[in-house]
Amino acid sequence: MNPIPLSDRQKKIAEIVRRSGPITGTEIAGELGLTRAALRSDLAILTMGGILDARPRVGYFYTGKSTLGMLVEELSSITIEDIMSVPIVVSASKSAYDAVVTMFLEDVGTLFVVDGKGCLFGVISRKDLLKASLSQGADLHNLPLAMVMTGLSKIVLSKPHEPAAAAARRLIEREVDCLPVVLPFDEKKGKWKLVGRVSKTNMTRLLAELAEGKGGTYHS
Amino acid sequence: MNPIPLSDRQKKIAEIVRRSGPITGTEIAGELGLTRAALRSDLAILTMGGILDARPRVGYFYTGKSTLGMLVEELSSITIEDIMSVPIVVSASKSAYDAVVTMFLEDVGTLFVVDGKGCLFGVISRKDLLKASLSQGADLHNLPLAMVMTGLSKIVLSKPHEPAAAAARRLIEREVDCLPVVLPFDEKKGKWKLVGRVSKTNMTRLLAELAEGKGGTYHS
Repeated sequence: MNPIPLSDRQKKIAEIVRRSGPITGTEIAGELGLTRAALRSDLAILTMGGILDARPRVGYFYTGKSTLGMLVEELSSITIEDIMSVPIVVSASKSAYDAVVTMFLEDVGTLFVVDGKGCLFGVISRKDLLKASLSQGADLHNLPLAMVMTGLSKIVLSKPHEPAAAAARRLIEREVDCLPVVLPFDEKKGKWKLVGRVSKTNMTRLLAELAEGKGGTYHS
Repeated sequence: MNPIPLSDRQKKIAEIVRRSGPITGTEIAGELGLTRAALRSDLAILTMGGILDARPRVGYFYTGKSTLGMLVEELSSITIEDIMSVPIVVSASKSAYDAVVTMFLEDVGTLFVVDGKGCLFGVISRKDLLKASLSQGADLHNLPLAMVMTGLSKIVLSKPHEPAAAAARRLIEREVDCLPVVLPFDEKKGKWKLVGRVSKTNMTRLLAELAEGKGGTYHS
């Protein structure tokens, strides 16, 4: 895949305006040794793309966005559902030891604790289990999951149709590796059906794929 | 921050071409109930932006890139150095127990093991320590770090000036949470100075900030 970025001349113009703006079209043409007319289409592209802005009798100025307007647009159309993974779950009746085994078998850093109907009950991380296993005399076989997990009331939930970037922000702010993706199950009882997980791994993969020009696969 | 995306008409045109391309300008105008002349500047923008391509006697076709060309361009200019964090290190002479304590104190998931000169010697993760702490009879106080860490020969290194997206791809492919960022120290002896760490957390933060239009802060 061969991306077609701004032309070299368009980049030069953006750079001149960033450095010297506000600047008139004639002045830009002067710096480049070209006529004003020769720049007309480049300036139109840069302006309509939101990279430059123009004001009458002032000239062109740099919006500070570079190609970011489009990037923001592109990113905001990718939802959590587009990138989420299948959640790995353990039943609330299991022990901390069972959780460790599941975590190694599935090679994930976060498990979701669910009730019999697949509703979210808690979250348990590698860090929780490492802490538990180090507590003096802790026998993980006899340690109920509920004693080490983070309970539902302290968990930030995400919904499938929210932007992926909102989940990225939440992962950073809450300092967790993974968020549960849920849909309402019984709103009166505050029960949520677990439908996915969205993690820093999903975000890292998304970034790698966008950089490789594969973002289009997220919009079918 | 208020991104300026493609206009609605430009999006409509791109969508028509994606669905029905190759298609002539006149046919596109027909679908939109407009004249060919009215579309001239929109088609120029979409073509020069790399979203559409045109071939004589064939018409317009969709490149499949949407605004991705520009996104790829934007991302490729962000380097590992722009987003990396300070590495948290432990000395090679410490025990696994010391590593756990450092990990909890610093609240990181990966520690780097270094020699007296700050050169990289190994990497140790929460997963390594959880495994060690569960091994029957393991006494973490008397377990040397070298017994649980991943040694230098098996670690993927990253350099500060590589694109951030290359590190994202490596994190995914090697299934690790964090990579050491190094500079050559003594190439003959295969020694590398540890200068940073780049993790899935850095990638998640970068994605969140790009989506919020803060990418410009990465290019000063």
